[in-house]
Order: sequence, then C-alpha cells, then structure tokens
Amino acid sequence: MSVLIVGSVALDDIATPLEKRTDLLGGSASYASLAASYFAPVRLVGVVGDDFPPAFIKMFKDRNIDLTGLEVRAGATFRWSGLYEQNMNQRRTLSVALNVFEGFAPRLPQSYRQSSLVLLANISPDLQSAVLDQMSGHPFTIADTMDLWIDTRRDDLLGLLGRVDLLILNDGEARQLSGEDNLLRACRWLMARGPKRVAVKKGEHGCLLAGPEGMFITPAFPLDVVRDPTGAGDTFAGGLAGYLAKAGDTGFETLKRAVVEGTILASYTCEEFGLERLERLKEEDWSLRRQEFRRLTAW
Amino acid sequence: MSVLIVGSVALDDIATPLEKRTDLLGGSASYASLAASYFAPVRLVGVVGDDFPPAFIKMFKDRNIDLTGLEVRAGATFRWSGLYEQNMNQRRTLSVALNVFEGFAPRLPQSYRQSSLVLLANISPDLQSAVLDQMSGHPFTIADTMDLWIDTRRDDLLGLLGRVDLLILNDGEARQLSGEDNLLRACRWLMARGPKRVAVKKGEHGCLLAGPEGMFITPAFPLDVVRDPTGAGDTFAGGLAGYLAKAGDTGFETLKRAVVEGTILASYTCEEFGLERLERLKEEDWSLRRQEFRRLTAW
Repeated sequence: MSVLIVGSVALDDIATPLEKRTDLLGGSASYASLAASYFAPVRLVGVVGDDFPPAFIKMFKDRNIDLTGLEVRAGATFRWSGLYEQNMNQRRTLSVALNVFEGFAPRLPQSYRQSSLVLLANISPDLQSAVLDQMSGHPFTIADTMDLWIDTRRDDLLGLLGRVDLLILNDGEARQLSGEDNLLRACRWLMARGPKRVAVKKGEHGCLLAGPEGMFITPAFPLDVVRDPTGAGDTFAGGLAGYLAKAGDTGFETLKRAVVEGTILASYTCEEFGLERLERLKEEDWSLRRQEFRRLTAW
Repeated sequence: MSVLIVGSVALDDIATPLEKRTDLLGGSASYASLAASYFAPVRLVGVVGDDFPPAFIKMFKDRNIDLTGLEVRAGATFRWSGLYEQNMNQRRTLSVALNVFEGFAPRLPQSYRQSSLVLLANISPDLQSAVLDQMSGHPFTIADTMDLWIDTRRDDLLGLLGRVDLLILNDGEARQLSGEDNLLRACRWLMARGPKRVAVKKGEHGCLLAGPEGMFITPAFPLDVVRDPTGAGDTFAGGLAGYLAKAGDTGFETLKRAVVEGTILASYTCEEFGLERLERLKEEDWSLRRQEFRRLTAW
C-alpha cells in the first residue's frame, strides 16, 4: 500500500548554540516522505521554486518517492530560518519567506487520487482539507498540525478534525486546542470532535497514543547528543504512516508498533542537521536500535 | 529481607487550585515507609513531636512498620505547608517549621543495624551519612535527595554519593547537580561519583534508570485527575526499595521491575491528598493497574 503525503518542502537555515547551517532540505513533507519511504512507496504533493537544488530531487527519487505531485513554480522555494536556545528545547523562528508556497493550491495527479492512506503533514488546515476533497473513496487519514494553525485557523482545523482518523499533535498543542491541562482529558476532547485516535508527541518524553481501545505510551529513544531536532515530529508522522501502509492495517496493535517505528526514525533525525542522518540510514543500524529500544522499554 | 528507611515525618497543609487540606500525615519517610510496607517489613527512623496524632502511629503499626527507631520528642512535629499552581506542576512552599526536627540526630536501635537494604529518603545529606555510619556490614544503599540540598549542602551530598549504590533524584536535580543538560550525560556524571546506578524521576513523564548494564525508561501511569502529587517521589523510592527487599536481589532486571512497582504506587499517591489513597490500597485494584500498565507500555 502506498502513502500519499502532502506538506511543505522548504530550504532551512538552522542555528544551534554550537553550529549554524544554511540551505538544508526541510519542510514537513520532506521529512515525512523520507521517513515513510523506508517502509512503503510514497507519493509527494507539494510545491518548490525553480531554485530548488536538483540534488534534493535526486535524493527523493533515489528513495523511490513519486514526485508527480511536486509542482515546480517560477520563483523561490519556501524558506525558514530558526534558532535553538541553550538546552535545544526552545526554538525561535527567525524568518519565514513563503515565496512559491504563497497561494499554493495542492492539485492531485490522477494517479494519486485512489491512495488508501493519506498523511496530511503540517501545513494549513484549509490546504489539508483541499487535498481530501480531491481523493476518491475513504482513505485512512492522518493529520499533523502546529500551534500556528490553532492560533490563526482554529475553525478550519476543527472542521478538518471531522475528516481525520488519526490526529497527531504535540502536548502543548493538545492542551491549547482543547483547553484541558490533563492530557487524557485533552485526548478525549479531541476524539469527541472526529479523530478516532490521537497521538500526542511529547518531544524528549516520547508519545501517548489514545483511542477507544485504550492508551499506549512510549518514551523517546534517549540520545547523548541532539544536534538538531528540526523535523523530528514530521519524521515521526512519516514513519508512522509508512509503517501502517506497509502493514496494510490500522488496528490499535499495528498503530502501537507504528508509533514505535516513528519514534525510532525521529531519533535519527535529531542526531544530525536536517535530513542528513535519515538519508543514510542503514538497515543494520536501524535494526540494532529497534532491539535496543525494546530492551529500554520492556519489563 | 527488611528495609530500613530514614527520612522526615511531618504534618502537612496542602492547597491545590480546587481544595485545601490541613494536618495531613506527610514527610519523606512516611510516604516511603507506607509504600515499602506493601512489599517487605519496614524499620522506620525519624522524629516526631508529642503532638503527633496517635491515629498515624496506629496506621504505621497496622502496616507492620517497626517504629522502634521513631523518636518522640517534647515539642511540635515538623510542619510543611505548600501550594500547587493551576496545572499542578508548579509547587510553592508557603512555610516550613522544623520544630523537633531541628537538631535531629538519627540514632539507630541495635535491632536495626544489621539491615541489608537502606533507603535514605529525602533529608539532609549529613543526616543520611550519619545513618550509614551506624550500620554494620555493607547494606545496599539507596539515597533520594532534593534541590534544597544541592543548593545548601552540595559538598555533603557529593561526599554521600561515594557511599550510595542507587541514587534517586528528579530530572531538574540531575541537571543542576551535574551541570549537564542532557540526562544521559548527567547520569554518567553522577555514576562517576559513586552510585553504580541512578534513577531519574521525571514526574508525569516517568523514570529513567541508568547503570553500567544500560538504561530502562518507563512512563508514569497516566491519570485523569491528579488531586495532590505531594509525596509521589517518596512513594516511588519506598516502593522501589520495598520491591528490592522482597526480591532479595538488586540486579538490573530486578531493579527495572522495582522502578515499575514504585511508579505504580506513586500513581495512587497522586489520586488523593497525602497518604489517603495509598493507605487503603487493595491487592485487587493494584494487580489490575499493574496489568493495565503492562498493556500501556508493551509493544
């Protein structure tokens, strides 16, 4: 089963207390697609400018990511610049230039419309809905979001919830959207508005998955050094979606495992800048880390 | 195997955004002893004033907690008063009256000196050391601490570390004492100073256990309602120590399970004020929660 992923494709400049890097491949759809590609064929929907480096196109193609849905428009690619503070937990956006992303209206190629699993990676909820409008049948729909849309597009986001099977968001966003401090009550509030299940990302503290079947809680994979956490949440969502597509099943037990696989992939993203670590993931390392994660969590 | 527990025994006044309660049984040794008593015989070392309610003495005795080492001095019992802010994560100490605790010098009854497992619950590190000075042989030693002692008794605390097998502290304290933001590096810093193993309490995010064998990470048991988190860390330490005493073993696999048992007991403490929920713990409920915790964490 293939997975359709819509989101942003960007060029990022990232500074941490120790390093500064420019012109990195970024954007929610880039991280999510690369992560998902380790499990299943990916169909990418997004937009880039005519300045987008051919090397990044080649990287996507080398990972068998279908780029039929990647629009190339005259102009500059979406750019984001961010700065991490001392402990890497606080991030400040220094600048955003939407460029070709401004006025982007996702158009699905005919070959994409039958996809049975869709990941609406983090973009504005009206664009996420526009993608669903073009789908045939009833794909299993996963949506990620962020605080920006809760602040500026709350009604669109609430409207989208009724069309989503699994909502992914972080703990602060779950509290902000629901108005509930307690995460279990926040999840129930969200589930009452559409999504059968909710995955709450807690950064270095892992993930809480809630559904009518109960809950599942997993820590993050502990790392000695976090060089750049940008895209960890997008990697998690992509890995999770890819695993479900590979399994061809969305039951709770499969979802638990998908959460674990997304968590493990996200740990690689944090180890280096941008997608640099995830790009050169080797099955041998990955399989060892999965075993290590089981030892870390089993009792 | 019995467990020797030294710490504070107090009367607490606690206010939360919704409720206010006075004259609750509190103190690190009270929570830890009650928790440990569900697994093993407990020997308590502490001090109370002559105002200490007989009902609390009876409660300890009913749980088979040996009070030979509980000194009763003329004067008032140690009192603490605290306030929780809106989200229950921030606590402010409103007042502390040391009373009979001032000048307390723990004296071990002869019958206690052979104990093979000691929990130095949260009191000042010089008192914790004074207890170890009176022990025969080499008991397995667990020490808990808090930010106050890192601020005011850093040298005493560092001196104590060389005598401790398992150090328990929270994530903020691990970072504060080691000067390392990253928890894995903080644990290695601490282990290099004596304790073979370190258990880092992360509040609602659970616990990280580190040792030369590797790591173990467990979430907290998720609760719908947290009425009063006071003593959750002391309950965790007591439950952990009690489980080790019952098992008669301190290997890493046993420790992992001890961390889980401490975590589950701590969840009960949070559900009501003071020790009210832990006091009336029923084996049936407890066993169901353990099964539920396994479902929550297994993959």
